Amino acid sequence: MLDQSYSDAIWHRINQKTKPLGSLGQLEQLAHQLALIQSNQKGERVTKLEITQPTVVVFAGDHGIADEGVSIAPSAVTQQMVLNFIAGGAAVNCFCRANDVALKVVDCGILLPVEHQSDDFIVQRLGNRTNNFAQQAAMTAEQVSEGILLGRQVVKTIIESGSNLVMFGEMGIGNTSSASAILAALSNRPVADCVGRGTGISDQQYAKKVTLVAQGVERCAGQDVYKVLEHVGGFEIVQMVGAYLEATEQKTPVLVDGFIATAAAYAATQLNPQCRDYMIFAHQSHEAGHKYMLEELHAEPLLDLSLRLGEGTGAVLAVPLVRAAVEFYNNMASFEQAGVTV
Amino acid sequence: MLDQSYSDAIWHRINQKTKPLGSLGQLEQLAHQLALIQSNQKGERVTKLEITQPTVVVFAGDHGIADEGVSIAPSAVTQQMVLNFIAGGAAVNCFCRANDVALKVVDCGILLPVEHQSDDFIVQRLGNRTNNFAQQAAMTAEQVSEGILLGRQVVKTIIESGSNLVMFGEMGIGNTSSASAILAALSNRPVADCVGRGTGISDQQYAKKVTLVAQGVERCAGQDVYKVLEHVGGFEIVQMVGAYLEATEQKTPVLVDGFIATAAAYAATQLNPQCRDYMIFAHQSHEAGHKYMLEELHAEPLLDLSLRLGEGTGAVLAVPLVRAAVEFYNNMASFEQAGVTV
Repeated sequence: MLDQSYSDAIWHRINQKTKPLGSLGQLEQLAHQLALIQSNQKGERVTKLEITQPTVVVFAGDHGIADEGVSIAPSAVTQQMVLNFIAGGAAVNCFCRANDVALKVVDCGILLPVEHQSDDFIVQRLGNRTNNFAQQAAMTAEQVSEGILLGRQVVKTIIESGSNLVMFGEMGIGNTSSASAILAALSNRPVADCVGRGTGISDQQYAKKVTLVAQGVERCAGQDVYKVLEHVGGFEIVQMVGAYLEATEQKTPVLVDGFIATAAAYAATQLNPQCRDYMIFAHQSHEAGHKYMLEELHAEPLLDLSLRLGEGTGAVLAVPLVRAAVEFYNNMASFEQAGVTV
Repeated sequence: MLDQSYSDAIWHRINQKTKPLGSLGQLEQLAHQLALIQSNQKGERVTKLEITQPTVVVFAGDHGIADEGVSIAPSAVTQQMVLNFIAGGAAVNCFCRANDVALKVVDCGILLPVEHQSDDFIVQRLGNRTNNFAQQAAMTAEQVSEGILLGRQVVKTIIESGSNLVMFGEMGIGNTSSASAILAALSNRPVADCVGRGTGISDQQYAKKVTLVAQGVERCAGQDVYKVLEHVGGFEIVQMVGAYLEATEQKTPVLVDGFIATAAAYAATQLNPQCRDYMIFAHQSHEAGHKYMLEELHAEPLLDLSLRLGEGTGAVLAVPLVRAAVEFYNNMASFEQAGVTV
């Protein structure tokens, strides 16, 4: 657990800034959380926060359930989008350029591998794609363990190379089905509440999606996180779970993106409740089940822009708010410094 | 009015980007609005948007009604905060540094003038402060006209010096009372709906504030905007009205901040309905009447961070979202370019 002994002094510093009490709203909570994390890292209360090399990792994987027609696009699109990330043409690339955020792409097991070598493209495939979880377990217990380990390694390397703010995005046709199933299985909420329309399916597809997700959930509801991931997870999702666990071990804050990223975050907090302390919730997705996940995690996201794209886009868009919180915590004048009458 | 003939082609460009239709939510509306404005400026559909030297102008003025004890702080604090802006210590300064936004401060008539000379501090005082509008007209008709003209000049200069995105913040103890009165007088909504707690007053102060605002509103409800500003406006507010009018004349988009900035925006749209086309609403204030203003303006703000500070802070925090919209409009790959199957 984060040592809370710094908390009062941090609030005192924030409350002495030249502004009405609480008037910076969520940015005050954010500054407090960052200051608490960085004070814990350093073992003393920090008065100067620092954000270095913020990095988004986009985990990509394919899903057997996509064959059931629960998405607007076929699995081949996952590979096409990975190539788009590599070429710099996707939404997340644009937002990274606009906000000075580094981007890494991880092939966790997409249907059609890509030929590409660079430091920013990491291949750690758990298979070609998961099994159709409506029919059988999505993966083996070994794939779950291996995936968590691989996700951890990626984040360890990124943090060791100098990043102290990370975020995890994803790409995988069919992965809203998997995330919905994880939510339903771990929270015991009705499946219909947990399933949404992904990036835009019809009423008929939606009804089918609920039925298919329920079939997977039936096999694992109420079991432990590892079993749930084995039955209804995705290769990119298990690697993201590992990524959150490692960020926590490295005492590094994570900006949590939308629906699928939050499903992995939720699973990670059940494996290690300390993970929650390091999570900054970036974005309220318009995917139906996201609000329930956020309730489970007692989280209030920074942004609500009606995004429903994934890729880490919401997290990357929130980076400037983190920088703004850092700047006011570090450099905004106190009442005393500015000679302002309280 | 903006020439809408570019609209379909702009939507087509946005819809061909490698993302599910509409999945970038409010950023798509934002990109469309910017593209429409810049296409109108250039007289042809632009495929490359550009944002240069975004600039926030903080208009400061004092209010006679502050003597009634409707605020948490005395009028002297307005001057102290102006000095804080000049010294770089206020919240808006921090957010400007974090987001690479230029800052200008305008003394529109604060109680205690400051001695300071710089290009970024503009003195155009309409008086020492307004009259107490609960008792008499806040200012003369001449002060209204003069203020609008002076506000226009500031913005004209900024745009001519190379800025193509402006935003207007304010500082003035007592100015939520003035903004509430403007809203009530122009919209015919009940005064109690329009009055909030400013930066944090007690129940007793709140009841008194409603009564005082109602006294001002009674004298001018249903009259034209100039009369309303004369009776219940503020020196900073009338200059902001001029600022919005000029931005529109210069075909330049404006990020609209919180409660007081929106009151001025609302008044400006009643003088020139074309102003609405250039307004990007940055921030949902937690001041009570703001949601009614936004309803009147059919506006959905980008951010909702529970801010209630003013100074243009919400607008400056939204600048990175504008840059993100520009980047995706300019450089995100189309389905065809990326070889992604629709």
